[in-house]
Amino acid sequence: MAKLRVGMIGGGGPGSFFGMVHNRAISLDASRELVAGALRTDPAAALAAAAAWGIEGYGDWQSMLAAVQSGKLCLDYVTIVTPNHAHYAPARAFLAAGIPVLCEKPMTMTVEEAEDMVAAAAPGNVPFVLAHTYTGHPMMMFAKELVRTGQIGEVRKIESWYNQGWLASDLEASGQQQAAWRTDPQRTGISNCGGDIGTHAFIAATWVSGLGVARVSARLNSFVPGRVLDDDFNVIAEMSNGATALIHATQIAIGYKNDNGFRIFGTKGSLEWHQERAEKLLVRRGEVDEVYWIGAGFSYIPASVKPYLRVPAGHHEDFFPALANLHQTMEFTLRRRRGDGTAPTPFDHPGLAEGVAGMRFVRAAVESSKARGAWTEL
Amino acid sequence: MAKLRVGMIGGGGPGSFFGMVHNRAISLDASRELVAGALRTDPAAALAAAAAWGIEGYGDWQSMLAAVQSGKLCLDYVTIVTPNHAHYAPARAFLAAGIPVLCEKPMTMTVEEAEDMVAAAAPGNVPFVLAHTYTGHPMMMFAKELVRTGQIGEVRKIESWYNQGWLASDLEASGQQQAAWRTDPQRTGISNCGGDIGTHAFIAATWVSGLGVARVSARLNSFVPGRVLDDDFNVIAEMSNGATALIHATQIAIGYKNDNGFRIFGTKGSLEWHQERAEKLLVRRGEVDEVYWIGAGFSYIPASVKPYLRVPAGHHEDFFPALANLHQTMEFTLRRRRGDGTAPTPFDHPGLAEGVAGMRFVRAAVESSKARGAWTEL
Amino acid sequence: MAKLRVGMIGGGGPGSFFGMVHNRAISLDASRELVAGALRTDPAAALAAAAAWGIEGYGDWQSMLAAVQSGKLCLDYVTIVTPNHAHYAPARAFLAAGIPVLCEKPMTMTVEEAEDMVAAAAPGNVPFVLAHTYTGHPMMMFAKELVRTGQIGEVRKIESWYNQGWLASDLEASGQQQAAWRTDPQRTGISNCGGDIGTHAFIAATWVSGLGVARVSARLNSFVPGRVLDDDFNVIAEMSNGATALIHATQIAIGYKNDNGFRIFGTKGSLEWHQERAEKLLVRRGEVDEVYWIGAGFSYIPASVKPYLRVPAGHHEDFFPALANLHQTMEFTLRRRRGDGTAPTPFDHPGLAEGVAGMRFVRAAVESSKARGAWTEL
Amino acid sequence: MAKLRVGMIGGGGPGSFFGMVHNRAISLDASRELVAGALRTDPAAALAAAAAWGIEGYGDWQSMLAAVQSGKLCLDYVTIVTPNHAHYAPARAFLAAGIPVLCEKPMTMTVEEAEDMVAAAAPGNVPFVLAHTYTGHPMMMFAKELVRTGQIGEVRKIESWYNQGWLASDLEASGQQQAAWRTDPQRTGISNCGGDIGTHAFIAATWVSGLGVARVSARLNSFVPGRVLDDDFNVIAEMSNGATALIHATQIAIGYKNDNGFRIFGTKGSLEWHQERAEKLLVRRGEVDEVYWIGAGFSYIPASVKPYLRVPAGHHEDFFPALANLHQTMEFTLRRRRGDGTAPTPFDHPGLAEGVAGMRFVRAAVESSKARGAWTEL
Repeated sequence: MAKLRVGMIGGGGPGSFFGMVHNRAISLDASRELVAGALRTDPAAALAAAAAWGIEGYGDWQSMLAAVQSGKLCLDYVTIVTPNHAHYAPARAFLAAGIPVLCEKPMTMTVEEAEDMVAAAAPGNVPFVLAHTYTGHPMMMFAKELVRTGQIGEVRKIESWYNQGWLASDLEASGQQQAAWRTDPQRTGISNCGGDIGTHAFIAATWVSGLGVARVSARLNSFVPGRVLDDDFNVIAEMSNGATALIHATQIAIGYKNDNGFRIFGTKGSLEWHQERAEKLLVRRGEVDEVYWIGAGFSYIPASVKPYLRVPAGHHEDFFPALANLHQTMEFTLRRRRGDGTAPTPFDHPGLAEGVAGMRFVRAAVESSKARGAWTEL
Repeated sequence: MAKLRVGMIGGGGPGSFFGMVHNRAISLDASRELVAGALRTDPAAALAAAAAWGIEGYGDWQSMLAAVQSGKLCLDYVTIVTPNHAHYAPARAFLAAGIPVLCEKPMTMTVEEAEDMVAAAAPGNVPFVLAHTYTGHPMMMFAKELVRTGQIGEVRKIESWYNQGWLASDLEASGQQQAAWRTDPQRTGISNCGGDIGTHAFIAATWVSGLGVARVSARLNSFVPGRVLDDDFNVIAEMSNGATALIHATQIAIGYKNDNGFRIFGTKGSLEWHQERAEKLLVRRGEVDEVYWIGAGFSYIPASVKPYLRVPAGHHEDFFPALANLHQTMEFTLRRRRGDGTAPTPFDHPGLAEGVAGMRFVRAAVESSKARGAWTEL
Repeated sequence: MAKLRVGMIGGGGPGSFFGMVHNRAISLDASRELVAGALRTDPAAALAAAAAWGIEGYGDWQSMLAAVQSGKLCLDYVTIVTPNHAHYAPARAFLAAGIPVLCEKPMTMTVEEAEDMVAAAAPGNVPFVLAHTYTGHPMMMFAKELVRTGQIGEVRKIESWYNQGWLASDLEASGQQQAAWRTDPQRTGISNCGGDIGTHAFIAATWVSGLGVARVSARLNSFVPGRVLDDDFNVIAEMSNGATALIHATQIAIGYKNDNGFRIFGTKGSLEWHQERAEKLLVRRGEVDEVYWIGAGFSYIPASVKPYLRVPAGHHEDFFPALANLHQTMEFTLRRRRGDGTAPTPFDHPGLAEGVAGMRFVRAAVESSKARGAWTEL
Repeated sequence: MAKLRVGMIGGGGPGSFFGMVHNRAISLDASRELVAGALRTDPAAALAAAAAWGIEGYGDWQSMLAAVQSGKLCLDYVTIVTPNHAHYAPARAFLAAGIPVLCEKPMTMTVEEAEDMVAAAAPGNVPFVLAHTYTGHPMMMFAKELVRTGQIGEVRKIESWYNQGWLASDLEASGQQQAAWRTDPQRTGISNCGGDIGTHAFIAATWVSGLGVARVSARLNSFVPGRVLDDDFNVIAEMSNGATALIHATQIAIGYKNDNGFRIFGTKGSLEWHQERAEKLLVRRGEVDEVYWIGAGFSYIPASVKPYLRVPAGHHEDFFPALANLHQTMEFTLRRRRGDGTAPTPFDHPGLAEGVAGMRFVRAAVESSKARGAWTEL
């Protein structure tokens, strides 16, 4: 079985971080390989970065696209790892050219861009995966299946959160690259904290529950002096079924790393999950707390999740495998399209619809906050 | 040293719960004893309940007060353990008579009642303790001291919560006594979930931080069909220093027992505490998480907290000692008033001011929720 | 219902610790009270200590016993809280006089003394409770019931342990009272660590499992220079059914407080309990971890354990209530003896037989260690 | 930079498990690739397995070695993933041919084989890494550095353990492949539980502490009827500095997955680590518990560990990256040998010496157990 050939846009050079994370996720299953990339904005630097990784380099994504279209380069899909403002143009162009895309979140800078991407993908029904890494954690997938199959009844309330502390002081002033682009409206859009990690809390609240957000009341803060965008993001949401959700995120919680998680309370039971102990799921349906662990060998793992597990029982796969699972979903999708009957059914991971919803959510939250928490429709 | 003599109002009879809890808390330190009580509404039942406990019985609180005033009964203070609607009358009367009161929360049914109690206590500066049990946990007291002494800098954001599941279904229909009075507006006031456990989250947010709540935007829900009052309570609050607080509570989180706790994020560090593991406090001021344990022998325990500890190191005192600590505060106050120089300085536990603030908080939340989350001043 | 009247031997004076702990445990349920004591070795100091507690004072236990026998003092039972070497004489004398005894552990200094106490109690079948505090934790009682009723099948292996750090350095050199008597063979016997906390691990291994220890292979260490007795205690034991147990304790584990606990592995399942999170029990019988919480209201609590719970659900009772539960067992025993049909059935808490077994265990371990781990019968 | 080319011996076919795990670990860093393999015993099946993975296939390792020696195949190193009995022959042959080897543990079937492998590697000082996966966890490496640099003083006592439950019943009777070879003396050697997971506990006790085991007293059990080899393994060890270690493992702990970990108690502090929450290290040096997290960005991570981290802060890398770190050590070693000045210093991961020590440890334990726990020199 030939490995899938993957191209990358962005993600290279010193100070970048997530490009190499995707490279590892692409490589982990030994069934995909990164073969080409337009890894940086500066063409010379882009070529140098590609050379350093030992892949075919392009000075910009346009020339990489041209190479694909001219048949000089064969790619099964591309991964977009640029800062937020640079997702839309290449994603739209590759989709329009019929080339599948796995793109970092938040999907775009605006709702309009997001909807335009949907339009671009529609004619060819081109596969698109939105890289909400944590949705690749098998126990988060298991949680979604438990809700979908009615194990906790009708959802009444959701808490989802993401606490970080790395932007509690003016890190961007030091020139730190990750801080600099996230706090810059030109590169990150209308919301920093909301777009960067509030969207994770949003996905937990919606994707796991299977519910949409109907309207929000929000309070965004910029605690660190001089910061234009929010570094703290708080939303009370009304869900599509009338449930209430508390969706909040902050970047000023000193000492907190990636404290993302959710609790979902239904009429028959409750779920609780924490990204920092991602390999367990706490289910409460009666008097006894039930703790479920990751492990392909456990009979409770649904058939839809099992193909995404790599270790039989009780070892923690965690972060890279979670991201790799999104690439697995792309791979399974592509292999099945080509008639490979051995490819598992791809899981229902976030895609274009979730990307648009996320952009609408962030926009509504920003508007509501400006209107002192007025309830704002998505 | 003679034991302090304590009277009790309410709390007796089958199906009651917290009267005996206070009895234990009164007894635990072997320096106080419950000697008299008007334990139930029905006079005959009240006398029977007192007899069962081996204490002097009164048919109603009025006759117990009369006995004190006539010199027939000597009480150092009274404890009020009635349902919410029956706090005000006896508390006011005893305070007006100059007799100290330790009263269950929420303090009253209305803000007006609460303010009237303040007025009643003022002339004699009569000691009053509001029984927010969890504030008696030494690590919660320690947390308050850490904030007060600037260990985490200026407070920016607070999360405080209380998740329970016992009212996820229509328990009151079964006649269960605890459920019945809490869901009945006549006995519990304008808010069930907010008054009963939202006030715990409120106290965590305000008492520990030393901040007040300026205004709130709230969403209250009644999830269980047929219920008039809220069983779910969500508030975004603006604190007196401009900080933001998320204060929420629910009674429909199936399988959650007493998941109360807080996180406080300051400019220099963070605190995290959970009632269900009350004997530890998590402090984050840099890269390393610091975990503090209860224990009188630890040098980090402040002098203000040390007199409240009973065990030198590493054993958990937990629930009854926490409540006993509120009685300790009453005892220390009374002993010092009488010139006992060996009595420790009483800790700054919640009292009348916190009771009034709690009532204002609940009222504002109820109003805001009716006004679809409009920001409402306290 | 009149309160039971309790006397205390030892436990008073500055620097003592557990006397007041027992006083609290006696008081907690408001059904017993400490009324008399011979609290210290020096008669004048003993009288002063009793006066400070507001109880009737005796200069020595002999005169307190005489007062009981002459009818001047009425006691339902006595509690012995002296250092190890001073358990035997008063315990034996009170038992011989037909007065029930609740005695601290380890029961005596030697096996012979322990056996003599059994003989003294036999004629009148005088109630005796050995104060293994942790056996009063309801979840440890629950664990014993799960084993007894076959929920985890036949026991194959046990781990039980107790890690402390407070004697990691030469604390006794500072004159610290607790360290001084524990490291002194005259007052503590042939083993410090084994007798003081190894016996807790022994009780966990035997009392919970319902098994005896047949023979041991041991290695005891004295890590701190100058120390005569062990501060580290390690045993491999063969149980009465052929199971293997690892029973170990140490006092040199810096930073560990009271890390006592056990794991029991049977043919059908496993149990795990930790004293430092005493209110939960982890049960594993299949793929899903089951977590049980303390709480009188939970239907899984056996009828034999239920009378020992004080709070309906999800609040932690913890340390003082655990010790109070041993006093409850004494109280239930006495009340039933007197024909009180409302008194619950006393739980099968450690008594004389467990005390003798504990002394045999420590003796065998000391001998085995001297013989370089030779297997030694109990 | 060209990727290192890796060959694999064993690990293919249905029912195998760890071959694919190594394949992922080889691929994860995108700097190595699996290019060839003799993946199964049956030559035809071996070729088919290689084809399924898309690598160059060989019918047996001898022909793969011949291909390397004749220059037809270029390999930087080989990974051996066969059952225990099939480690020695290929490992010895490749080492003798000067080809580096990364080999699964336990290293061989006998001490003699292990020593012979040392002899084979000696002439060319051929690199060898023993695949003790857990030593690749950065927090375990950090622990080793803390001990080495004296942060916890002189080591006094060690606990290390590994509890599993998957062999609590007669799984091998079902033909399950993993159970079948581990319980078969022909394929697994003189010890099942000791060799398979006791060696993990051994490595934790020795490699982290920097100490050797001098002598052991052991008790091995075969709990499941019909089993020839041990499924339970208990050792009290005397370390090279006189410290005592409890080293134990079991396969009959129902519901336990991979509960491996250690506690190390020194004269200045203590360390605690659990494989099932591998990304944190608990350090106790005073009153406050210190919790350290994985994360390249934390200043406490030693320079020797930093090159092994892939994510800046607070995401969990866990299992595959841990194994990949052993491949990193091989890669760093090889690159530096070739003069690549950018390659980091390889960490001191287990190699031939640890492999020999592990075999001596298991042999001594088996002998001691047969001699009823007689102290046996390594």
